[in-house]
Amino acid sequence: MSNTKKLPLAGVKVLDMTRVLAGPFATMMLADFGAEVIKIERPEVGDDSREFGPFVDGFSAYFASLNRGKKSLTLELKIPEGKAVFLDLVKKVDVLVENFRPGTMEKLGLGYEELKKVNPRLIYAASSGFGQTGPYAHKAAYDMIVQGMGGIMSITGEPGRPPVRVGASIGDITAGLFTAYGIMTALYHREKTGLGQLVDVAMLDCQVAILENAIARYAVTGKAPEPLGTRHPSITPFQAYKTQDDWIIVAVGNDQLWAKFCKVIGREELIDDSRFITNAKRTEHVEELGNILEEIFKTKSFAQWMKELDAAGIPCGPINTVDKLFNHPQINSREMLVKVKIPQDKEIVAPGVPVKLSETPGGVQGPAPALGEHTDEILKTLLGYTEEKIASLKTKGAL
Amino acid sequence: MSNTKKLPLAGVKVLDMTRVLAGPFATMMLADFGAEVIKIERPEVGDDSREFGPFVDGFSAYFASLNRGKKSLTLELKIPEGKAVFLDLVKKVDVLVENFRPGTMEKLGLGYEELKKVNPRLIYAASSGFGQTGPYAHKAAYDMIVQGMGGIMSITGEPGRPPVRVGASIGDITAGLFTAYGIMTALYHREKTGLGQLVDVAMLDCQVAILENAIARYAVTGKAPEPLGTRHPSITPFQAYKTQDDWIIVAVGNDQLWAKFCKVIGREELIDDSRFITNAKRTEHVEELGNILEEIFKTKSFAQWMKELDAAGIPCGPINTVDKLFNHPQINSREMLVKVKIPQDKEIVAPGVPVKLSETPGGVQGPAPALGEHTDEILKTLLGYTEEKIASLKTKGAL
Repeated sequence: MSNTKKLPLAGVKVLDMTRVLAGPFATMMLADFGAEVIKIERPEVGDDSREFGPFVDGFSAYFASLNRGKKSLTLELKIPEGKAVFLDLVKKVDVLVENFRPGTMEKLGLGYEELKKVNPRLIYAASSGFGQTGPYAHKAAYDMIVQGMGGIMSITGEPGRPPVRVGASIGDITAGLFTAYGIMTALYHREKTGLGQLVDVAMLDCQVAILENAIARYAVTGKAPEPLGTRHPSITPFQAYKTQDDWIIVAVGNDQLWAKFCKVIGREELIDDSRFITNAKRTEHVEELGNILEEIFKTKSFAQWMKELDAAGIPCGPINTVDKLFNHPQINSREMLVKVKIPQDKEIVAPGVPVKLSETPGGVQGPAPALGEHTDEILKTLLGYTEEKIASLKTKGAL
Repeated sequence: MSNTKKLPLAGVKVLDMTRVLAGPFATMMLADFGAEVIKIERPEVGDDSREFGPFVDGFSAYFASLNRGKKSLTLELKIPEGKAVFLDLVKKVDVLVENFRPGTMEKLGLGYEELKKVNPRLIYAASSGFGQTGPYAHKAAYDMIVQGMGGIMSITGEPGRPPVRVGASIGDITAGLFTAYGIMTALYHREKTGLGQLVDVAMLDCQVAILENAIARYAVTGKAPEPLGTRHPSITPFQAYKTQDDWIIVAVGNDQLWAKFCKVIGREELIDDSRFITNAKRTEHVEELGNILEEIFKTKSFAQWMKELDAAGIPCGPINTVDKLFNHPQINSREMLVKVKIPQDKEIVAPGVPVKLSETPGGVQGPAPALGEHTDEILKTLLGYTEEKIASLKTKGAL
């Protein structure tokens, strides 16, 4: 079959107005599966994240990771000549993605209501902090603002200690994921009906969507969930323990595993201890059990515990620092760290594609673009502009 | 247009073999947009999460939240009669989703290679801990195991303190999100070609995919990123501070905001202080700056600071506990907490749909099903089975 394999989004053209993280993450997911993503950037300035470190030979590794396989076209949208080029592009594409503050495109006269007159098949995806509607619509948001506002920070951290943020920008990234899903849903619908539509995704909404059982817990009990360190709210023992050297995570998910676990730790009398006999009892007496287990785990090394728990079939694992991912047998085998080219034949390392499709596998389709690298190519091939027209647009500052 | 609105996934039939979280989250996303999701459950037992608290009148709110709008059909796959029903269903559906440990469906003789012979158009989505391939493929995983192994726990928490997990099950939920995206990508491809395929998503891979810039930071600097509390690794001040009462998040993203911020806190002399004059300098002297700002924030209440910072246009916000989401003006306005019916005309509260489509909006399509609630209906209408045949299957323990 391999010679019939192709990319599932081949032929899909995306006009990508996004900057920094949430939007670029969504269009990266499209580019990895073969969509032609044309990144519109302001002349001379470009995506803000071109200035974000770390740098390799002056090129942003942050930018390179998120913008692999995309094309870059510079365009000044604040002058009429730039707008005209933009409208020509809108006629030719399937999807437009932007993550401006709501109202920005409307101020330019380029909001969805205008653009759908030009291209009724257009899918216009807008990813923003708070969404296109509601009292907060026009406020600015950053990842950490929505992490705080959306509830996840209130359940992350140690009990009684200062708050912590989720170490990755989960506010942006989940918005990127839902945006990519929304675009694909709208594209599927368009295949059936020919109609485009607006896809409106808010970072704050996505934070609520991923809280999942914390919502139900509060709605039913009236008690707001609190941070629990590494502990699971309703399964015990299910947390990290400090060994002689490193931390180990142990996940004793049911009573069968509890019995096996007690044997491994050499404390078979705990199996039938009335305080610990069911998961509910163990959770009720979590502190007493914690005191016992903390002492036991200190007696051996991480490697010893891993060996013994693994042999007994008890789910357990390490807390890996990022360096440990680079030579991890499973991560390597799944090609989850990949090289991405940057200018001057250098390369950086970036996450691979976690959606493995058997017939149309995705992958990094090319390097991240230099600013404006594809301006001439796209204007010539996609829009049929002449060299003279392009030169004139450059003179006017439109490109 | 409103009378032409319909659901974008209307007509898409999904055979849902998933349990607990990652798989059910993916099929919830499909159901919310109109796919007909037929949940296959073991007779008498059902999805494990039917036993997860909290409960409302004996019905799991956890289960109800994730399984809204799905149908339930009981089926015993370990006996030939059950398998025959299953194969009849496979012929009629577009998508199958499972989150068993890899090899489980193969042991039943129902792996993808067998099923595609029965239905070459089938999209078979498998969400697992470590994926269908690689040395860890057959290991069990829980959310916390992959949170630990995949790196996010190593960058979440306070510096020098014990590790913490992300308070929501981000290991499961991101796998659910990528699975839903993968299914839509495969469905789009099938519209063009008629071909089904396998969608293989691993929780561990998804953890690597969401680390994003931590990968680039390590690859470039050779230094593994560490937890920083609420602090941003490269933007300063960009973190939570304790006020007289509650914590406040302040996000001073650039030098213009820094100047405004210094005015709000009444310390204009800091604007040109050589230690703090650029973002890079502020990050370099983050401890000195932190000591100054911690003292200042203690002098006023959260509400006072919010008012003053907001008026100056400086992004800021609260750390909301989950109860605060229930009367939040923006979250209400976006319908991000919705009621879901459960049996006996009761209801629970669950997250709404964060993907807002203008022409084909999604939403909760119905209650979560009682175990086997739709068995007879589906066998009659989808497969055309007679009452007699259904009765016979029940006698044999297949349903």
